Order: sequence, then C-alpha cells, then structure tokens
Amino acid sequence: MYDTIVIGGAAASLTAAIYAARRAMKTLVIAKSIGGQAAMTDVIENYPGFLSIGGIPLMNKMLKQAMKAGAEVIYEEVNAIEEIPNGNNGKPLFNVKTVSDNNYKTKTVMLTYGKTPRTLDVPGEGEFGAKGVSYCVTCDGPLFKGKKVVVVGGGNSALEGAEYLSKICPKVYLIHRRDQFRGFEYLVEEVKSRKNVEILYNSVVKEIKGEHIVHSVVVQNVVNNETKEIPVSGVFVEIGSVTKTDFIKHLVKLDQLGQVLTTNNAETYYPDNEKIRPGIFAAGDITQTPFKQIVVSAGEGCKAALQAYNYLAGQHPTFVADWVAKKKH
Amino acid sequence: MYDTIVIGGAAASLTAAIYAARRAMKTLVIAKSIGGQAAMTDVIENYPGFLSIGGIPLMNKMLKQAMKAGAEVIYEEVNAIEEIPNGNNGKPLFNVKTVSDNNYKTKTVMLTYGKTPRTLDVPGEGEFGAKGVSYCVTCDGPLFKGKKVVVVGGGNSALEGAEYLSKICPKVYLIHRRDQFRGFEYLVEEVKSRKNVEILYNSVVKEIKGEHIVHSVVVQNVVNNETKEIPVSGVFVEIGSVTKTDFIKHLVKLDQLGQVLTTNNAETYYPDNEKIRPGIFAAGDITQTPFKQIVVSAGEGCKAALQAYNYLAGQHPTFVADWVAKKKH
Repeated sequence: MYDTIVIGGAAASLTAAIYAARRAMKTLVIAKSIGGQAAMTDVIENYPGFLSIGGIPLMNKMLKQAMKAGAEVIYEEVNAIEEIPNGNNGKPLFNVKTVSDNNYKTKTVMLTYGKTPRTLDVPGEGEFGAKGVSYCVTCDGPLFKGKKVVVVGGGNSALEGAEYLSKICPKVYLIHRRDQFRGFEYLVEEVKSRKNVEILYNSVVKEIKGEHIVHSVVVQNVVNNETKEIPVSGVFVEIGSVTKTDFIKHLVKLDQLGQVLTTNNAETYYPDNEKIRPGIFAAGDITQTPFKQIVVSAGEGCKAALQAYNYLAGQHPTFVADWVAKKKH
Repeated sequence: MYDTIVIGGAAASLTAAIYAARRAMKTLVIAKSIGGQAAMTDVIENYPGFLSIGGIPLMNKMLKQAMKAGAEVIYEEVNAIEEIPNGNNGKPLFNVKTVSDNNYKTKTVMLTYGKTPRTLDVPGEGEFGAKGVSYCVTCDGPLFKGKKVVVVGGGNSALEGAEYLSKICPKVYLIHRRDQFRGFEYLVEEVKSRKNVEILYNSVVKEIKGEHIVHSVVVQNVVNNETKEIPVSGVFVEIGSVTKTDFIKHLVKLDQLGQVLTTNNAETYYPDNEKIRPGIFAAGDITQTPFKQIVVSAGEGCKAALQAYNYLAGQHPTFVADWVAKKKH
C-alpha cells in the first residue's frame, strides 16, 4: 500500500516524488521512461539555476534526487486506475494496473505523465518495455551501441533517430508504413545515403519477440501482406506523442483538448461537476496550463505532492515547512 | 519605457525576469536585495536539479541567468505604483516609484517580492540601500570583512548576525530597542561573550549618515533620550520580515492574510470585483499559494512572464515555445 503513486517520469512527476518522499510518504513512481519532453531537448537555458544544461542530465538529476529522498521507481505503463470508494476510512483507495498486469494499491494518485509517446499496440511491446523497446532515441540510443536496431516511424524524430543510430549501430532498419517520409528533405537524403540503414517502406511492425529481452520484430508489408522476422536487439518507436486520457476520463474532468483541469493547488475535479476529486492530483503538461515549461511542471508537481500530503494529513499530523528545518541556526 | 518591471529579487522574480527577457521583453528587476527567503537558507535539498545547494549560490545562479538573458537589475525599494489608464493603446501604463524618488514607466508589473525585510524607516535608510545598508547578514556579511558594523534587532536573526560578524569584523555594535533579547539563550550568551561585540540596549537608530556610502549611524537611548553618532561602514537591519501590501492594495485584490489573489495563470484581480486586472501579475510567496517553496515560486514566476507576454501579444506577434527552437535537429 502506497501513500502515493506518481504516474509519469518527467519534471512534474519527479518533483512530486521528491516532495512526497521527503514528507515520508511511501511513494512509487511508475513511468514508461524518464524525462518526458525535456529529455528530448538538447540544450535547456531557461530552467532556473542552470545557465545551460541538457534535458537528459537535468532529468537524471531529478530522478537521482527522488530516489535519494526514498521514492521507488518502476518502468511500466499504467493502463487502468480503479477506485475503491471508502477503502481508507471514508477516503477512497486506488488500484493502479499496468500493461504487464501488475497491481499497486495507493491512497493517492498523481497524474503527471504529460504527453506520452504514441505506442504501436502490438504483442510484445508492453512486455519488453525498457527491455529493448524504447520511445526515445536521444535518451536510450547509446545503450544499443554495436547492436542491430529497428526504428519505427516516418517523421523527423524517426529520421533523426535512424541518422544517429547509424553512427553507432552496425545495422539500422527504418520501418515506415507509407511510401514516403514526412520529414525534412535534407534529413531524408542523409538517412537514405547511409549504407547501414535499410528502409522498409509500406511496412508495419506486427509483433515484438524475445525472451527477457528483445530478439526480433515481425514486419508486414502492407501492400503484398508478406511478413518477415528481423533479428534485432532494439526497437525505437518514434511515431509521435499523445496525451492518453482514455483510462482517466471516468475519474477526472478534462477540457476540450483532453487536458486535466486542476485547481490552483493541483487538485482535480469529478468529470460531471465542479466538486474536487479526493485523492487524485495532477500536474505538468497533462493539465490545462498553457505554459508547457519544465519549471512550471516542477512547481505544479510540488503543489500536487504537498496537497496530497495535506489531504492525508489525518495520518500525518505534523506539517513543517522544509525550510524551517534547514534554516541557518 | 519597459515592457515589464519585476518587483522583487527572489525565485519568482528572477524566473519571471529570465522568461520575460528571453521573450525579448525589455525587463527591469527592482529589488532591495537578491534571494529572498531562499538566500537565508543554508542547505536546499528540494529544489529539483540539485541534490544539495546553498540558498545564496542558487539565487546567484538565477540572477546571472536573468542578466544573461538581458534583464536589467537595480537595487532600490519600490514604494508606489501609479496607473495611467489607457496610456498604451487602450491598455494601462504604470509608473513605478522608488524610495529614492526614481520613476520607471512600464507596460506591465510583476509583484514577486514575497516577504520583505522589515525596515527601520529612518532618514538615510533608502538612500544607502546596497551602499552599506543590508537586510541579510548571511547574504552580504562577507562584504564587510575588516570593517566596523552595526546590527539592529533583538531576535535570533540579529543575534546570529552579530555572532557571525564578530568573527570577521573588528567591531560589531548590536542595537536593540529593549533591555533583553528574544533569541535562544545559548545564542544570547555566545554574543555577550564576544569581546568585540558592544550591545546597546534600549536603543534605536534615528538616522543613517554618509556620503555615497554609509559613514555612521545616529543612535538614541530611549530611556534617557541621549543620542550618539557611531562611525560604521555597514548597517544590518535584522528586525523580521513582512509582506508589504500598503502600496498595492488599491490596485489588486488581497485575501484576509494580505496575500495577492491570483488566477492559475498568475493574473491578479481588481480589489473590488472578480475581474482580472490588466497588466499586473503576481507570483511567489506574496500570493495566496499555501506552498512557499522555491520551485513553486519559480514556476509561478514563469507563468507571470509568459502571461504578461501573451497580454502584450499585440505588440509581440510571434509566440514560439522555447523548446521548439532548442529541439535536437
């Protein structure tokens, strides 16, 4: 039983985890990957405190800080949240389920997963998450040095991914469902010129296979329906991002863009009225804030954690501002 | 004429300045001092991105970042904001006045000064701000090494200040209006034991004198009304902090605690109704947020700047998210 489960792995999530864990809340972070949009950014110059820092180093610092504070982190994808009304002395409990059919019980939930990579939705994709399947070449590419890999997609992210991976991998398969790319022309030409990049047009991934880790992908040509199995160690899915709200829309109120509506204190609402939803908090790019900035997400993540702490305060009687204990004496 | 004047010098202010200046808004920061409450904190472990950092180093990084982005910074105290209705094509302009009788015109104002040190309100105090008068021993003490200084106050901050300064200054006068201290007993004993600390009980500062920089203070004994002039280079005013709202309460709506009420996008309201106040934004500890945390202040400061940018958007047609330009290509 957790005090809070943070769904997501970017600035809002990790800040929420830092604050929750520092308040001695039993905290679990469930993330498909760490870093979110920030991790895809090479140079960040507007996060206060750093004149210049890479997105991945910044997110890794936050991850380290959350874990040092005591948060647990697991790499999985959540696909359902079930409410158990009055499961906790008149307050609800929640059962958070993942695509691997794991279940985690918690007193509060933080929706902080922002935009998430679009998935292939094929067999094996969930099973091999972080075991060969990745949604961010910039983040995970270096781990696949010297190995055969697949990149799926037809836009700039996929092209950039293939271009980079062709420098460190002996063979890169670029799988695109259409017969031409949507990316920058110079990038298309660059990728086509690489001898170790094999482009499979009009093709889709049907299955990801392996044992503990990825061993191959099954690819189908959508024109002639032929399939073949390609042995690879890594599958990079670079087909855009989306805010997944299907599994939360029965729980919280969304705006027309599918963003979670929050109060000034990172609380959510019931879907059907203006009442505050007990136990569910939200922060970051998933919410209605028009300012999709790392420091805004972090600030809102802090609010979510402290408001969740307040909500559970019956079980946690002492509320002391962090800076009081730290003030020079 | 500025696009925005940021009043204050802590996390909310400096983040607002970073974002405003990066959006090419002509930005002026007017602050009594840099760092706010954060600068008084020795060790910060909950600001995302730093496992551990001192308050002053963190605030100095933010200051440097704001100045690098193009923000101007001046050290003064604001004591009035006058509105010039319809001064800017149907939008208001503002005239920001300081205690030194300087005037600065601006299209928008950001109220981000949080809690500010309580002032003595004596002649010379405004004139010698940052020229010998300081409100933070922890921040400015090291600048007065080898010089004679005065500390004003009777609580822990004043006692801590005198204790520290006695190590680096040949002479420290501790001026307290009562006949005993309000601080920790061990600290009182420690300060009394220092040979180079002279305690003046029942005494108040009547004037601060100098030429360009502080040369002396005039001190009056409140029991016998005798005054004397003491030659010093530094005056540390450590008499607590307060949120100053006298000069803004005719402009924006405050809550019962005197805090500025803001929307989720860092906008303020008119004092008498629920309408949003054009041109005035607020962020940080000065607002109603119950979470007085650095990262929350920074996040709200970012919102204030971007919302001010949106408000002025008629004059600034292009709005591009920072991360778009910075994304790996």
